[in-house]
Amino acid sequence: MTDSIDDIDLMMHGIGTVARAAAADLSCAPADRKRAALEAAAETLADTRDAVLEANERDLAVGRNRGLTDAMMDRLRLDAGRVDGIVGSLRAIAAQPDPVGRVLAEWERPNGLTIRRVATPLGVVGVIYESRPNVTADAGALCLKAGNAVILRGGSESFHSSHAIHAAMVAGLRAAGLPEAAIQLVPTRDRGAVSAMLRAVDHIDVIVPRGGRGLVGLVQREARVPVFAHLEGIVHIYVDASADPDKARRVILNAKTRRTGICGAAECLLIHRDIAEGLGARIVADLIAEGVEVRAGDGLRGSVKATEDDWGTEFLDMKIAAKVVDNVDDAIAHIRRYGSSHTDCILAEDPAPVARFFERLDSAILMHNASTQFADGGEFGMGAEIGIATGKLHARGPVGAEQLCSFKYLVTGDGAIRT
Amino acid sequence: MTDSIDDIDLMMHGIGTVARAAAADLSCAPADRKRAALEAAAETLADTRDAVLEANERDLAVGRNRGLTDAMMDRLRLDAGRVDGIVGSLRAIAAQPDPVGRVLAEWERPNGLTIRRVATPLGVVGVIYESRPNVTADAGALCLKAGNAVILRGGSESFHSSHAIHAAMVAGLRAAGLPEAAIQLVPTRDRGAVSAMLRAVDHIDVIVPRGGRGLVGLVQREARVPVFAHLEGIVHIYVDASADPDKARRVILNAKTRRTGICGAAECLLIHRDIAEGLGARIVADLIAEGVEVRAGDGLRGSVKATEDDWGTEFLDMKIAAKVVDNVDDAIAHIRRYGSSHTDCILAEDPAPVARFFERLDSAILMHNASTQFADGGEFGMGAEIGIATGKLHARGPVGAEQLCSFKYLVTGDGAIRT
Repeated sequence: MTDSIDDIDLMMHGIGTVARAAAADLSCAPADRKRAALEAAAETLADTRDAVLEANERDLAVGRNRGLTDAMMDRLRLDAGRVDGIVGSLRAIAAQPDPVGRVLAEWERPNGLTIRRVATPLGVVGVIYESRPNVTADAGALCLKAGNAVILRGGSESFHSSHAIHAAMVAGLRAAGLPEAAIQLVPTRDRGAVSAMLRAVDHIDVIVPRGGRGLVGLVQREARVPVFAHLEGIVHIYVDASADPDKARRVILNAKTRRTGICGAAECLLIHRDIAEGLGARIVADLIAEGVEVRAGDGLRGSVKATEDDWGTEFLDMKIAAKVVDNVDDAIAHIRRYGSSHTDCILAEDPAPVARFFERLDSAILMHNASTQFADGGEFGMGAEIGIATGKLHARGPVGAEQLCSFKYLVTGDGAIRT
Repeated sequence: MTDSIDDIDLMMHGIGTVARAAAADLSCAPADRKRAALEAAAETLADTRDAVLEANERDLAVGRNRGLTDAMMDRLRLDAGRVDGIVGSLRAIAAQPDPVGRVLAEWERPNGLTIRRVATPLGVVGVIYESRPNVTADAGALCLKAGNAVILRGGSESFHSSHAIHAAMVAGLRAAGLPEAAIQLVPTRDRGAVSAMLRAVDHIDVIVPRGGRGLVGLVQREARVPVFAHLEGIVHIYVDASADPDKARRVILNAKTRRTGICGAAECLLIHRDIAEGLGARIVADLIAEGVEVRAGDGLRGSVKATEDDWGTEFLDMKIAAKVVDNVDDAIAHIRRYGSSHTDCILAEDPAPVARFFERLDSAILMHNASTQFADGGEFGMGAEIGIATGKLHARGPVGAEQLCSFKYLVTGDGAIRT
């Protein structure tokens, strides 16, 4: 046991050391070379699609044996279309403007100085994720675009798929003459590797943990490296008394059922008391008709009765909690207590509760009359995302290459001294 | 011992709980009320100047008994002019535009959504600082301006001065009808309070530690709360072979001697080999003539011979290390090894080494032909600063109210669903 942990620490030390060296090279790599690496990776991935799908079959077989839920299997599954989606995403990231070296602000001072704030890479990013294999490509590509080296630690479920995708990324780096250690995949399924990354303050500048409740606890207990938390999406939708019935029914069905396994899927409905028996009942009936299990609180007739545990649960499945609230303030209080600062939504035509919801809540994304499934970097126009950050520091909401940068000040004078 | 730590944890729990409640109130406090609180605090401080100076006398007497260095005594000392400076700083912060609610970006998407990114408060900020009493006012005021509650933990040396200034801040909050717990001062000199703050993940969203090597180590070992490090300023100045002699001599004298106790004071000179015997020797002679102890490496005749310990030391005193380097790359290598990512400067007329210095180093502030004493939020035009952040996440360089904010996305649709 001790030996195994020592081995993992030693492995992480090796990975971290070469990542640091790669980051130093990448920090001043020309934009066109990073672009070439991403284009070559996309081409390699397209060329090796069959091998990737074969690797994914192996993961799916293991997943079936382990009895993964339908939602987990959906997140793990690749098909030709999804691989093409990953290829397209790599090309989209390649085509984006380079975020490094952008002049974020520039001004002159009466003291004679010219001050520029310019974007810089962060250094070495660690990404800890679960079953979704496309993260291997998206996270690797976005970190590279921002001039960062990245250490990827995918879920054990997607081990073979991630390795196959990673091979394409490395081929891209090689083709462009960039260090292969710029994108590393931790080559073990041992959970100890996650702990080792969370403690690797000498080797990793920031960790992006993407995952659910288990990862939340681990990060809180063990992280010594700063974190851009990408954790649970306990997404609430509040249906105000002023909600337009058609919009509300359409948005809620979409928010819950379009894809249940993504972090922007709705997990809890809060329905204004005045419309609980009318529109509220219709919405619940819609959901049940679509196959959703509605776990309902008092005053609503759902599939089953809600228990205390249902509030604040990320189902990631065809399940939703539903509750009657007195007004927008009651909804806000519920979300503050049970939410995860990811995405929360109000359906209303009256602007007053919307303004209050937008002002009083502090989720990364607040929505009005729109499906929470839009909580996504691509939908926000960022090209791609490493995930949705739920913390308040540095990165928040959908995180693309720009938010994977830091900045520095360049100050120019002509012999200026301070009096 | 155990009792005392339990007591401190209990005290921090109390302080943290009321800070959290105050932060909730402040997060939607109107801009004019925050402004009124700062103006009233400035007025109270001006009215109680004599009491503040009396409290400072008590701190100075304790400091003399403890044998504080001249640099430390300088940082601790207040006089009428310095109190007036603090009053002016409070008024300047009051007059600045409110950073909360600013629309940082706004765009529309083909999917029919309008997306706004707006600035929000961070929540509860903890500030750990050393002897400088003005930080009590500046940090308190900047956090309030950004809608954050703040827990201040000043150095034991400035205990009485900080309490007197804090009383004025609280009077301002009271006059404006804002919660007094918005700006709290930890009421003990016990060092255990610093550890308790660094661990207070439930109560504090971010810690700003301002200080030298002792605090660096403590933060690295104990911090569980995210940190905007404001740590050592090991400021280097590289004198290139192409440096203009007059500018170089003027800038270096200013950077070292204008005020030695501030974090932007120069601590190490790196002199190009080709000019070591000419301009380099003149610069060293200038410094010695001004009373600076020059701790010189091989090839330079200083006051004393440098030892390995002198590289990477923050003297904060009339001392400077000096060394001959082969070229700009050698200077960059030295700064990467011994620097603290605070402020580093190149003196050169040839643009090539300047471009290399600006590209290859990743200090928060890089300067060209300007005194490093300009590393200051006021000089940068930010009105005031909580300090100079040396980390890479969220805040970096001089930190004003804007960088003490986070943001959220407000997304508006008209019943939009994702297909």
